[in-house]
Amino acid sequence: MISAARPLLITNVRLSDDPSGQPVSVSVAGGRIEAIGPKLANLAPPPAAIVEDGGGALLLPGFVEGHTHLDKTLWGQDWYVNEVGPNLTDRIANERAFRKTSGHDAGVQSLALSHAFLAAGTTRLRTHVDIDTDAGLRYLEGVLATRDALAEVLDMQIVAFPQSGLLIRPGTGKLLDDALAAGADVLGALDPALIDGDPVGSLDATFALAERYGKPIDIHLHEPGEIGAFTFKLLLDRVEALGMQGRVVVSHAFCLGALPEPTALLERIARLRVALLTSAPPSRPVPPLKRCRELGITIFGGNDGIRDTWTPYGAPDMLERAMLIGMRYDLRRDDDLAAAFDCVSAAGAQGCGFADYGLHAGARADLVLVDADTLAHAVVARPVRKLVVANGRIVARDGVLAE
Amino acid sequence: MISAARPLLITNVRLSDDPSGQPVSVSVAGGRIEAIGPKLANLAPPPAAIVEDGGGALLLPGFVEGHTHLDKTLWGQDWYVNEVGPNLTDRIANERAFRKTSGHDAGVQSLALSHAFLAAGTTRLRTHVDIDTDAGLRYLEGVLATRDALAEVLDMQIVAFPQSGLLIRPGTGKLLDDALAAGADVLGALDPALIDGDPVGSLDATFALAERYGKPIDIHLHEPGEIGAFTFKLLLDRVEALGMQGRVVVSHAFCLGALPEPTALLERIARLRVALLTSAPPSRPVPPLKRCRELGITIFGGNDGIRDTWTPYGAPDMLERAMLIGMRYDLRRDDDLAAAFDCVSAAGAQGCGFADYGLHAGARADLVLVDADTLAHAVVARPVRKLVVANGRIVARDGVLAE
Ligand SMILES: [Zn+2]
Ligand SMILES: [Zn+2]
Repeated sequence: MISAARPLLITNVRLSDDPSGQPVSVSVAGGRIEAIGPKLANLAPPPAAIVEDGGGALLLPGFVEGHTHLDKTLWGQDWYVNEVGPNLTDRIANERAFRKTSGHDAGVQSLALSHAFLAAGTTRLRTHVDIDTDAGLRYLEGVLATRDALAEVLDMQIVAFPQSGLLIRPGTGKLLDDALAAGADVLGALDPALIDGDPVGSLDATFALAERYGKPIDIHLHEPGEIGAFTFKLLLDRVEALGMQGRVVVSHAFCLGALPEPTALLERIARLRVALLTSAPPSRPVPPLKRCRELGITIFGGNDGIRDTWTPYGAPDMLERAMLIGMRYDLRRDDDLAAAFDCVSAAGAQGCGFADYGLHAGARADLVLVDADTLAHAVVARPVRKLVVANGRIVARDGVLAE
Repeated sequence: MISAARPLLITNVRLSDDPSGQPVSVSVAGGRIEAIGPKLANLAPPPAAIVEDGGGALLLPGFVEGHTHLDKTLWGQDWYVNEVGPNLTDRIANERAFRKTSGHDAGVQSLALSHAFLAAGTTRLRTHVDIDTDAGLRYLEGVLATRDALAEVLDMQIVAFPQSGLLIRPGTGKLLDDALAAGADVLGALDPALIDGDPVGSLDATFALAERYGKPIDIHLHEPGEIGAFTFKLLLDRVEALGMQGRVVVSHAFCLGALPEPTALLERIARLRVALLTSAPPSRPVPPLKRCRELGITIFGGNDGIRDTWTPYGAPDMLERAMLIGMRYDLRRDDDLAAAFDCVSAAGAQGCGFADYGLHAGARADLVLVDADTLAHAVVARPVRKLVVANGRIVARDGVLAE
C-alpha cells in the first residue's frame, strides 16, 4: 500500500535533543535509517530518491501505542450512547451483549483505528484482542486481517486476551491456546484474584500456556491495593521460577499507586525486569512513574480502549496520551515532559520488545515531523503531523493518510 | 470589530436535548436570540439578515471559561523552557522574576489568548489578574485594555488576585482596593492560612474590602485536607454573617476531595450558595462533582493557567476542558458527560453570574456549531468549531477568527 519503498531524503529537520537547533537531514533506504546528520544536507540524494523538505520541523521517532483494544473500538461509527452500569462486570456483560447483537466487525473496526493511528504518527502498536467462549477466535481473525493488510507499515503485536476471565469461563484456556497457535504474539490475562477467583490457579494456567508456546505475557491487573500487591507477588514468584525475566508486562497495576510502602515490591519488579504499562487514568491510583524510572523499571504508555462500549474517551494520538501522562503525574518541567514522551516512544518499544527502534542509523525508518519548538511543546500542543514515515514509506501528510 | 451586528438566521442545526434530531433554526437580532424552533425554517429571513446554513451541525451555547489567568499566559510566544522547582513558592517567585526581566506584556498576551478562546467558542470568561507590589496594577491595565478591545463579543470578568499573598506582602491590600476602583469585577484571594499565615486576618481583610466595593469574591483555596476545611469553615462563617450568599466562589477546593466525611461541610456550602470551581487536575484531590450537584452546589470548570511559567498545559478549548473533567471524574455515560459539559456552560454562567445565558429566546446570542452526533460526542471528539457567534456577531469559522 501507500508508497513504494523508494529511498527517501528528508532535509531541514531539527532533533529534539540538539539545543543548537541546527538543521539535519535523514536518509532512508530499504525501510531503514541510513544516516542522520547535518552534513547530509550537502549530499546529492541517491538516485530515484524522494526528497522531502522538512521545513524546519521537529523530527520525532514514530510513536508506540503500548496497550489498546483495536477489536473493541467504535471508531468512525455513529455515536454509541453509553448507558452502562458502573461496575467492571457490568461493562464486560454489556460489551458481550452489544457485540452479539450489533454486527460489530472487529476486522473493519481495527482497520479504521489502525489507519487513524498511522495518520497520527503511531508505527508500532500492541493490541489486546478478546478471546472468549461466545466469540471464539472471531475478533482475533479480524485483527489478524488488519495486521496483514498493514504489515508493510504498522508493526503490530497481538495479545490473546481473556476479557471475560480464564478459569471462570471453562473453554477459554483452549481458545487462548488456539489463539497463540493462530498467530497471537503475546498471552494476555486478567485479574487472577478478583475476576478468576483463584490467583494461584489462574497465574499457573497462564504461565504454563505461555511457556508451552514460548510467548511473553501481558496481564491486565486492575486489582487494587493489598489484593493487587498479593497477586503481583505471586506473579513475580513465577517470573523468577520460570525464567521469564524481561518477558512480562503488567498493565495498569493500580495497586502500585496505593501501597503505603511500595519500595520493596518495586525493587523486585526492577530486578525481575517486569515492565509496567499505564494509561495514566486521572481517576485511579497509578504506579509512581518517576520512582519506577529511577529504579530502572520500564514503564510505558497506552490508551487502553478507544471509544468503545467501555469508555467514550481515547484517541489514536500518542502525543495526546503523552500529555495526559504528563498531567496525571503533574510533570511540568521540560525534562519531565521528555519522560512522558519516552512512555509513548522508546520506553514503549522497550516494554513491548519492538526491535530496531529510534532515531539512529540502522533503526527502522519510523519518523514523524511536527511544527513545534521543542519536544515538550510537541507534547502539550499536539500539532498536526506534517509527515509520517513508517518502515521507510510516507504514510501520511498533514494528518491525512496517504492513498 | 469582526462583523456588524446585522440580524442573523442560522438554519438546519440540531439541539443536543432533542433526540429526534429534527433540524431547527435560530434567529438573532440586536445581539439576542429571538427564537429557536423548527418552524423558523420556513420563515423568510428578516431584511438585511445574514443567513447561515448550519449543515446539520449540533448547536451549543457559547462556552464559559470559569477560571483562567490571561495576564500570565505565554500563548503564541516561543516555547518557555520550564526548569522551575516543585513548590508553590518556587513557582510564585520564578514567575515574578520572569515577568520582571522578560518583557512579558499582559496586554498583548491576554489579547492573544482571548482571540484563541473566541475562535474555539468561548464567549464568557472569568480571568484572575495578578496584583502585587512589584507590578502594581500593570497587568490589570493590560487585561482591561483587552476587555475593552473585545467588549462587543467577549463577556469578561476580571478578578483582582493577590498572587503573591495579601497580608504577607504589605501594600497589597491598597493595590487590591485600587484594582477594584479601576474596574476589576471580583475580589480574589489566596490560601489565607498557608500563604498568608493568618486565616482569620486574611479572610477578614478580604471580606471587608469586598463589602466596601459591593463586589463578589473568588478565592484560590489550594489548602489540603483538614487545614483547607478549617479555612473553608471560616470563610463560610463570613459568608453567613455578611450576607454574601450566592456571591462567593471557592476555586480548586482540593480539601473537599480529601476529607473522610465531607457531607456536613458540603451541605453548608450548598445552603450558603457558595459555588465551586475545578480545573479537575488529575494529580490532586478534587471536590466530589456528582455529590455536589446532587446537593445543589454550583460546580463549574476552568483551565486555570494556560501555557505559562507555572504550567505547560491548558488550551483555550472548553470542550477539551469538559473532556478532562469527564476523565477526572470517570464520567462515561452520556448523561454524565452532559454534566461535564454543564461545567463549561450553564453551571459556569451560574457560578460566575453571567446573565442571559443559554439557548432560549432573549438570551445573549452566543452560539457554537460543531459537527458531532451528540453532546457527549462533541465533548470527547472536540471537533473544530464550524461557526462561533458571540453577542450576535459571527466571530469565527472553522476554528479561525473572522477579521
Ligand atoms: Zn486494556
Ligand atoms: Zn488560578
